[in-house]
Amino acid sequence: MADTPIEATAALARLALDTPLAAMPQNVRHEGIRSLVNVLGCTLGGARHEAVQKTWAALAPFAGSPQASLLGRSERTDALTAALINTLASSVNTFDDTHAEAIVHPSGPVMATVLALAEMRPVSGAEALAAFIVGVEAICRLSKAVSVAPAKGSIAWSQTGIACGIGASLAAARLMRLDHDTTRIAIGIAAAQASGIRALHGTHCTPMMPANAGQAGLRAAFMAAAGITSSRTAIEARYGFAECFADTPHLAHVTTGLGERWEILGNTYKPYPCGIVIHPLIDAALDISRQAKPSPEAIAKVEIRANPAAMALCFRRHPKDEFEGQVSLYQWVAAALIRGRAGIPEGTDQAIAEPGIAALRDRIEVATDPAVPHDGADMAVTLTDGRRMSRTIRDCIGSRGRPMMDAELDAKFGSAADGVLRAPEAGALLAAARGIERLDDAAGLARAARSA
Amino acid sequence: MADTPIEATAALARLALDTPLAAMPQNVRHEGIRSLVNVLGCTLGGARHEAVQKTWAALAPFAGSPQASLLGRSERTDALTAALINTLASSVNTFDDTHAEAIVHPSGPVMATVLALAEMRPVSGAEALAAFIVGVEAICRLSKAVSVAPAKGSIAWSQTGIACGIGASLAAARLMRLDHDTTRIAIGIAAAQASGIRALHGTHCTPMMPANAGQAGLRAAFMAAAGITSSRTAIEARYGFAECFADTPHLAHVTTGLGERWEILGNTYKPYPCGIVIHPLIDAALDISRQAKPSPEAIAKVEIRANPAAMALCFRRHPKDEFEGQVSLYQWVAAALIRGRAGIPEGTDQAIAEPGIAALRDRIEVATDPAVPHDGADMAVTLTDGRRMSRTIRDCIGSRGRPMMDAELDAKFGSAADGVLRAPEAGALLAAARGIERLDDAAGLARAARSA
Repeated sequence: MADTPIEATAALARLALDTPLAAMPQNVRHEGIRSLVNVLGCTLGGARHEAVQKTWAALAPFAGSPQASLLGRSERTDALTAALINTLASSVNTFDDTHAEAIVHPSGPVMATVLALAEMRPVSGAEALAAFIVGVEAICRLSKAVSVAPAKGSIAWSQTGIACGIGASLAAARLMRLDHDTTRIAIGIAAAQASGIRALHGTHCTPMMPANAGQAGLRAAFMAAAGITSSRTAIEARYGFAECFADTPHLAHVTTGLGERWEILGNTYKPYPCGIVIHPLIDAALDISRQAKPSPEAIAKVEIRANPAAMALCFRRHPKDEFEGQVSLYQWVAAALIRGRAGIPEGTDQAIAEPGIAALRDRIEVATDPAVPHDGADMAVTLTDGRRMSRTIRDCIGSRGRPMMDAELDAKFGSAADGVLRAPEAGALLAAARGIERLDDAAGLARAARSA
Repeated sequence: MADTPIEATAALARLALDTPLAAMPQNVRHEGIRSLVNVLGCTLGGARHEAVQKTWAALAPFAGSPQASLLGRSERTDALTAALINTLASSVNTFDDTHAEAIVHPSGPVMATVLALAEMRPVSGAEALAAFIVGVEAICRLSKAVSVAPAKGSIAWSQTGIACGIGASLAAARLMRLDHDTTRIAIGIAAAQASGIRALHGTHCTPMMPANAGQAGLRAAFMAAAGITSSRTAIEARYGFAECFADTPHLAHVTTGLGERWEILGNTYKPYPCGIVIHPLIDAALDISRQAKPSPEAIAKVEIRANPAAMALCFRRHPKDEFEGQVSLYQWVAAALIRGRAGIPEGTDQAIAEPGIAALRDRIEVATDPAVPHDGADMAVTLTDGRRMSRTIRDCIGSRGRPMMDAELDAKFGSAADGVLRAPEAGALLAAARGIERLDDAAGLARAARSA
C-alpha cells in the first residue's frame, strides 16, 4: 500500500452523497442516460432467458412480498430478489455496457438497485439518474484501481462481480439519504460479499456474478441503515478490498479528479451480444455479407487477421452451447456472414447447431498480429466461384473511436424490447428513460418495463 | 497448479453423496455430534445479540414465508434468511469451533443449512448428521488447501467466509439427493459467492461473512437443482477457487485420504468466547484468581510471557467495544483475574467499561517468546501485599492436546442456553442432539431450539 493511505472509501461516499445532478456536466448526464437506455433494453431482452426463468423458479419459493417489478416480466417480488433477477436479465445476453479501460460491466447492478429502491420510496427521476451515475462511476474507478496500470491485478477475478456491489451500495445509500459514516459502512458490508471468479465464465454464473453483486449492494445499504457495523475504510484498509483483489492496487484511480473527470464517459455499448473482442470481425463480416449475399455453400474460405486478445478470449471453434458461443469468434463470423445479422438469434443454441453455420466455422482461418489494434480486424472471404472480398476495420462500431450513436442505441433498445413490450409501450419507456431528468417518480420506469 | 490436475471438485461431490453414515468411523460420528452440540449452544447464546437483532430487522421486510426456525428466537422465516440469521447467531460471540490447523470455523454455516433444509423436507437425524459431517470435512480440507503448508495463502482472506459456502452447498446437495454432476455445479455456484476480507474483522461483519456463506451455500444447491449451470471443476480449474484464494494452493489437502482420514477430528471448541490465542492466558488467570480471589485494587502487576501470535492478533490494550474486545488479551486477562470467570458477560461493552477491569488492563505487561507454544503461556501476578503467584500453561483447555470433554461441552451448552430456553427444554434439546443418529426427524432439533 502507498505510504500515505489514500482515503478511497470516504472519497466514494462523498461522491455518492455530495454531488448534485446539476453539478454533473451535461455530457456526463447524457452518458448516464445512454448507459441507462442501453441497460434497460438489455434487461428487457434478457428477461425471459432460460437462466432467468430457472433462477426465478429457484428463488421464488423464498421470496418476500411484492415490492418491486421484474422488468420485462409480469411478476413483482421483494426488492432484494428483484435486484438479483433484474441484474441477471441485464447481463445474461452479454449485451450490456463495458468500461473501455477496466473491462467491467457497471450498469446492470446499479440500475437494478436504483429501480428496486424507487419502487419502495419516492425517488425523482433526477435523483435516480444521479444515483445511477455515481454508482457506475464508483465501479469503473474501483475496477481500474485493481486492474489497470500502474495497478497490477489478476484476470482470475470477475471485475464485474467484485466491484459492482460497492457501486450499487453507493447508489442505494444516496437514495436512502444515509450519512457519510453510514455510507462508508455500507461500502464495507458490500465488500464483505465482493466475489466472482473467472473459472465460471461461459456458464449461467457469468451473469450470476453481477446479479449477486447487485443484490449484495442493495442489502448492504439496508443493513448499514439498520446499524450493522463494518470497517469505515474497507477499500484501502490493510487486508481490505484493494489489497485482496490486486497484487499492486492503485487507489489514485479512485480518487484522482473524482467528481471532476468522469470515467462514465469511457463507457461503451455493444452493437452485438458477444465478447467485445469479436466486434470488429462482425463489422467486417456484415459488410461483406451485405455486399455478396453468399449462400453458406458459396463460401470457400474466410481468412482473418486479428489482435491476439481476440483469440485469447474467444478461441472456441465449436462452442457447445449459447454461453460458450458468446465467446466464440468462429460462431459469430460464420453466422454474420451467412445471415447478414448479428443479434441475439445468431447466438442461440439453435444458431450454433445450424449445419451451414457449423460447417463454415471449420473454414475460418485466424492469424493473430499484435499490430492489429483491439478495435480492428482484417478479413478476406473467398467464394467458390473464385471471387474474393476483403475488408479492413479500424475503430469498430461501439468502440471509443466510433461510439454507438443515440439513434443506434434507441434501435438496439427497440429490437430488445420487441416481443416483450408492445411497440407503443416500448416507445413510451424509451421516451421516459431519455427524459428521466424530468420524471417526478422514477418508479414509473420500472412499472413501464413490466410486461403483461 | 500441479502438472496433473487434482479433481478436487468431483472428489468433494463423491464424499458428500457416497459416504453412508455407517461408513464413517465411530470417532468421526462422535466428533460430528460434539461439533453440533457446540454450535447449537453457540447459536442459542448468540440469538439475541444486537448484531442478530439488527440484521433481522434489516432483512425481515424482504423475507419470505415461514419455512424454517430462527434458533433461540420465536420467529420463523424463509429457509435462506434462516440460514443467514442462524449462522450469524452461531458465530457472533466468537465462541464457535475452530479447525486447529486451518483456523476456519466450519460448523455454523453447515448446521444452519442442514436444519433449514430439514424443516422443508423429511430428513432423518442420521442423514442430517452425515450431511453436517461431510460439509464440515469439506470446509476444513478446502481451507487447508489455500492456507496450510505447503500451500501459501494470505491472511487477508477470511477462511470461514471463503470456504464455508462450498461446504454448506455439499451438505444441502446430500440432503436434496442431487446427483454428482449437479453437486459439482452447486459447488461452482457457491464458489461464485466465495468472499470475506479480514479488514472487516472486529465489526459485525466478522460473523456476517460466515452468515453470507451459509446462505450462499444453501441457495447454490437450490439453484443447481433448478438447472442453473456453472463450472464442474470450480475448485481446481484455471482462474478457479484454489488459484484465486492462494498464491500456491495445495489441492492434495482436499483429496488425500478423503473419506479415510478425517479432518473433523482436528476440530476444537472454545471454552472462552474470544480469540483462541488468548485461551492459555485465561486458563492461567482463572487458576490464579481461584487461588487468590484478589480484589481489583489488590493486583499490582501482571507479567505474561506468550507466543508472538497472541500479540499479533490480540494486541488491543483498550478495546473500544465488544467486537474489539473479542481480540484483546488485556481485556480477558483482566476480567478473568477479577471475576474468576471468562464467559460471555466478561466480553460485553459493560465489562469493557468496568473501571476495575479497565484500570487493570494498564498493569499487564506482555513479553512475547517464540519458545512458548501456541497452546501455552506463563503468567505471574504480583499483589500489593507482596505475594506473587505464577502459573505455566501448556496444552490449554480446548486445544488438541487437552480437548474439551463431553461434559465440558454439555456445560457450555447449558450456560449458553440459560435464559434462552427453559432448563428442561434445554436439556431435551441437548439430549436430542447427542442422540441425533436415532432421531426420525432432524427438524425436531430446530423446533426444539425455538424460544417462546
